[in-house]
Amino acid sequence: MAADAAPAFVLLDRLPAAGEELRVEGDEAHYLSRVVRARAGERVTATNGAGTIATLEVLESRPEVRVLGVSSRIVERPSPRTLWCGAPEGDRADWLVEKLAELGVAHLVLVDFERSAWERASSRLERWRRLTAAGLRQSQSAFRMTISAPVGLPGLLTALPPAFAGAMALPGATLAIGDAPRPAGGVTGVVGPSPGFSAGEVKLLQEAGFIPVSLGPSRLRTETAAMAMAVCWQVGAPQES
Amino acid sequence: MAADAAPAFVLLDRLPAAGEELRVEGDEAHYLSRVVRARAGERVTATNGAGTIATLEVLESRPEVRVLGVSSRIVERPSPRTLWCGAPEGDRADWLVEKLAELGVAHLVLVDFERSAWERASSRLERWRRLTAAGLRQSQSAFRMTISAPVGLPGLLTALPPAFAGAMALPGATLAIGDAPRPAGGVTGVVGPSPGFSAGEVKLLQEAGFIPVSLGPSRLRTETAAMAMAVCWQVGAPQES
Repeated sequence: MAADAAPAFVLLDRLPAAGEELRVEGDEAHYLSRVVRARAGERVTATNGAGTIATLEVLESRPEVRVLGVSSRIVERPSPRTLWCGAPEGDRADWLVEKLAELGVAHLVLVDFERSAWERASSRLERWRRLTAAGLRQSQSAFRMTISAPVGLPGLLTALPPAFAGAMALPGATLAIGDAPRPAGGVTGVVGPSPGFSAGEVKLLQEAGFIPVSLGPSRLRTETAAMAMAVCWQVGAPQES
Repeated sequence: MAADAAPAFVLLDRLPAAGEELRVEGDEAHYLSRVVRARAGERVTATNGAGTIATLEVLESRPEVRVLGVSSRIVERPSPRTLWCGAPEGDRADWLVEKLAELGVAHLVLVDFERSAWERASSRLERWRRLTAAGLRQSQSAFRMTISAPVGLPGLLTALPPAFAGAMALPGATLAIGDAPRPAGGVTGVVGPSPGFSAGEVKLLQEAGFIPVSLGPSRLRTETAAMAMAVCWQVGAPQES
């Protein structure tokens, strides 16, 4: 639960090989030197966000941050959790992204629905992708959440495999999400935008294999429903190893 | 999922009796006239946040909002979910409060822990209590979440009944929260502050009957862990009726 109590964990696009020196820059350099105040000689953990975890030794933390590769290992990728998500209200997307990354969602797919499309996504996408780094540092996962640019529902549906089974968050659904099928190949869920799915979209999703599931008795906002689905996937999920 | 698609639902400290006229003021008047744009003759649902749901007829929506009591009913109080929560980082408490209210937590108890206390709570408490109204409107519950002013852990523990059983969110715990006991009288959970529990606090909590539970493999921020616990309580919970 404790960000501050956490050992330093950084995201580096390229990890140094054992014995290799690397200069760390940007956000991660700031995080190491200013946030966790790593000192020369200390060891920190790093990931490339693509399945490799490395142990690094800090050679220098000011004025520039230099690290030495000590060891690294490959982490087995857990079966992916993919969330198709409509646009929440206002500026709620920022923490939606942070929380989904923190909760181990592998792929966030932004979906434009009839009643609401993602606004200014092109300009906000880079910001959201940066936020996934914070979620990854917090969760200390070896896998960084991906975010795909908004697409319309029909295009997504045509790309689904024939025997697809997913979960659709629908108020009043009788099946609890915990009882929904969890395909070994990974789970996929869809959450509507703040105005909700249209009747036609619900029909399309069901025909495509999305089963209506309940996230509890309350009507939830889009970002809350998305997070609740991620929590339900996360609870009891195996530890990365 | 859909705030915009929701029927109007307002929180009134005092509900009109059947046939009684009432003038609505403040946030709720704004919500009725500006947000959901209720028109004269329309019916809206209201609650006092204390277990009564009323049907009201809008008599006038501008310039002032006047409603007529049509009918009302008492809702059975669900067994309460109580969350003891340490302080999250920065300004994350605002949405923590909104989300817990939205997810049906009955009582939020702010706890000052050794490593972190709630700052400026006295000045922020009123704001947080206002935020519970938004959560209640969204979840359309008849019960408004209470928030108690920050207290130290020892005082809270002495007030617990002898046979108390609760859940403590602890990274690395082996028991999944779904498998934790759910006393008929209501569930109680505790989440540490952003720097985490001290070792002494973990011992005190366990001695008091809090069982360590896991919220999944990721290390979660305080506000995320609190929300995850609320989601786990909420999923599969019975509908208010």
